[in-house]
Amino acid sequence: MIERSSIEISLSDIAQKSGANAALVKYHFGNKDGLLLALLARDAATEMSNLEYLLAQPITATAKLKLHIGGIIRAYYRFPYMNRLIHYLLHETNTASADEVSKFFVAPLLDFHRRLLAEGVSQGEFRATDPVLFYTSLIGACDHLFFGRHAMSRATGVGPVTDDVCRQYIKHMETLICGGILTQVEEAAAAG
Amino acid sequence: MIERSSIEISLSDIAQKSGANAALVKYHFGNKDGLLLALLARDAATEMSNLEYLLAQPITATAKLKLHIGGIIRAYYRFPYMNRLIHYLLHETNTASADEVSKFFVAPLLDFHRRLLAEGVSQGEFRATDPVLFYTSLIGACDHLFFGRHAMSRATGVGPVTDDVCRQYIKHMETLICGGILTQVEEAAAAG
Repeated sequence: MIERSSIEISLSDIAQKSGANAALVKYHFGNKDGLLLALLARDAATEMSNLEYLLAQPITATAKLKLHIGGIIRAYYRFPYMNRLIHYLLHETNTASADEVSKFFVAPLLDFHRRLLAEGVSQGEFRATDPVLFYTSLIGACDHLFFGRHAMSRATGVGPVTDDVCRQYIKHMETLICGGILTQVEEAAAAG
Repeated sequence: MIERSSIEISLSDIAQKSGANAALVKYHFGNKDGLLLALLARDAATEMSNLEYLLAQPITATAKLKLHIGGIIRAYYRFPYMNRLIHYLLHETNTASADEVSKFFVAPLLDFHRRLLAEGVSQGEFRATDPVLFYTSLIGACDHLFFGRHAMSRATGVGPVTDDVCRQYIKHMETLICGGILTQVEEAAAAG
């Protein structure tokens, strides 16, 4: 999928590339969705264990949040197929696939946000924030760099997502999520 | 499309529903993509003229930004097919459709963000912010309420997008985009 930069591959392509027997691949995973799900589950499991590790670190909730923002954007960048795969599986007519993606991807990530926000609020670092709304805004914003970018490239002259763009977006998201767009002066005025 | 809450409709469905002749619909729009594009172009044109109107108002850039956030989320909510249509057309094998969407949807919105951010920075209200990165994060976050929500509903017990959820999300996004998640105390500490 990385080679072709597409998820439009067949089980026999995979069998051929891997040197495995197509029938064996089919026996093991059932069908293409089964194989894609297994692939996504493997990568998701790695990312989710990183989240547990991050939560246990002796650093502030703010520092954890910043590391998490960088982590999501880099994971999407490193596994370009992950994002397309999630979109594809969530919109399958096969609702069992969509349920699986919710179970091993959406649910643990939402749970992580819930715990991180609670920690930040209890430490006086974060404003009280709804975890479901927070999940939606953070994941949506990170996702859109990869999902929406090629639409921008065409008509607007915006280039593709490179290492540099990734780094800039991580910095942008850290600043925006932590401090927002208002200058200190304006914010103090709004608060007062 | 609203009736079926799906964009999976045929030209003849449309002809039947509207009382028009299927051949005439085909003659006028060429094919289904042509009709969907015309529909999206019509709604996008309305939204874009609202943006020009907003930019000309004698209010602060911060007030304009807040109205804009509410405007995007309400537009997606009012036209549930708009979001799916954009996703569908941008991922068509027909790249001409994707180019059209970029031209009448992405480009004018990006241009609006560019001008609003410049105004806010020149008035000392906003931090210097890259318009392309800002567009990506704001549109991605708004889009995800509608695109990602049904994935969350299943495995995580999160309900559908109602009037109330919309209002909560508008409030959440206004707060997050303007002031971020950090409390004033933390932010002052981070800045100092």
